[in-house]
Amino acid sequence: MSDILTVKPLTRQDFAPYGDVLEMEGAEVKLINGGTTERFHALSQAEIHGDGKAGISIFRGQPRRFPYVVEMMERHPLGSQSFYPLSERPWLVIVADDDNGRPGRPKVFSATGLQGVNYRPNIWHHPLMALCEPTSFIVVDRVGSGINLEESTYPSAYRIEPQEQT
Amino acid sequence: MSDILTVKPLTRQDFAPYGDVLEMEGAEVKLINGGTTERFHALSQAEIHGDGKAGISIFRGQPRRFPYVVEMMERHPLGSQSFYPLSERPWLVIVADDDNGRPGRPKVFSATGLQGVNYRPNIWHHPLMALCEPTSFIVVDRVGSGINLEESTYPSAYRIEPQEQT
Repeated sequence: MSDILTVKPLTRQDFAPYGDVLEMEGAEVKLINGGTTERFHALSQAEIHGDGKAGISIFRGQPRRFPYVVEMMERHPLGSQSFYPLSERPWLVIVADDDNGRPGRPKVFSATGLQGVNYRPNIWHHPLMALCEPTSFIVVDRVGSGINLEESTYPSAYRIEPQEQT
Repeated sequence: MSDILTVKPLTRQDFAPYGDVLEMEGAEVKLINGGTTERFHALSQAEIHGDGKAGISIFRGQPRRFPYVVEMMERHPLGSQSFYPLSERPWLVIVADDDNGRPGRPKVFSATGLQGVNYRPNIWHHPLMALCEPTSFIVVDRVGSGINLEESTYPSAYRIEPQEQT
């Protein structure tokens, strides 16, 4: 019997301790290019430590099946990592507070297909969770030397029940 | 009678003098997250000069109408600027070589909805050219102090004829 996690809608307020939500709604807008373009400005910034640079990649994630068992989390000590979906499909964002160098209880957020996130450096998060179909995301994260990945397995797993959308 | 520009498909090879093409096709792929995710790795990197950071924004561009008259170009001396479409709609990319501090003859590339670009710092380019419908793009460019925009008007304009897709 694993511990069942609740899923909450992703909001800037709830996600603030872990990073930024990337979404047009509620963002600062500038009209540029002679009025032809709205710039939803600097929804987040890449934080890059050491000799790295902000790389731009695409991740294509296979959909997860539910009930889903959360067994581990990861974090990137040397840089932030952002994800924004390239189709308007919903996805899941899972983060945790740090508890003496290990991830605490996971917090699960349901993101719409018009929401991305930028995890701050060293924030525990679950690997990419696409739903229903293979989904591509544009990713901005650190490219450079040094060890930028730490993984941690939970002593006992958590479970996410099937959602309406899954 | 304005000078008519030809439109070529966007390829890495043709675009190389101006920056990177962001596309999954032909990119280095790493299998990560226990095999659930393909990482099309570091399609480009943000180049940020001075005290700036790589900001993540969304631009929503109104579609251009054709025949389109190219009257001006712009460039960003302090940082690269990348665009990737958030829907799979085609768009246009226009760049120019520098000619003694002014943009030379425009080169027009037709990008698919699965292609983005990253303009290098100081590369002359036309403001965002969405086609057909308002289209959103995720943008990575410099956020910071200093003047990072230079614009230049052509002494005589160029014209892009209506395309099949427009």
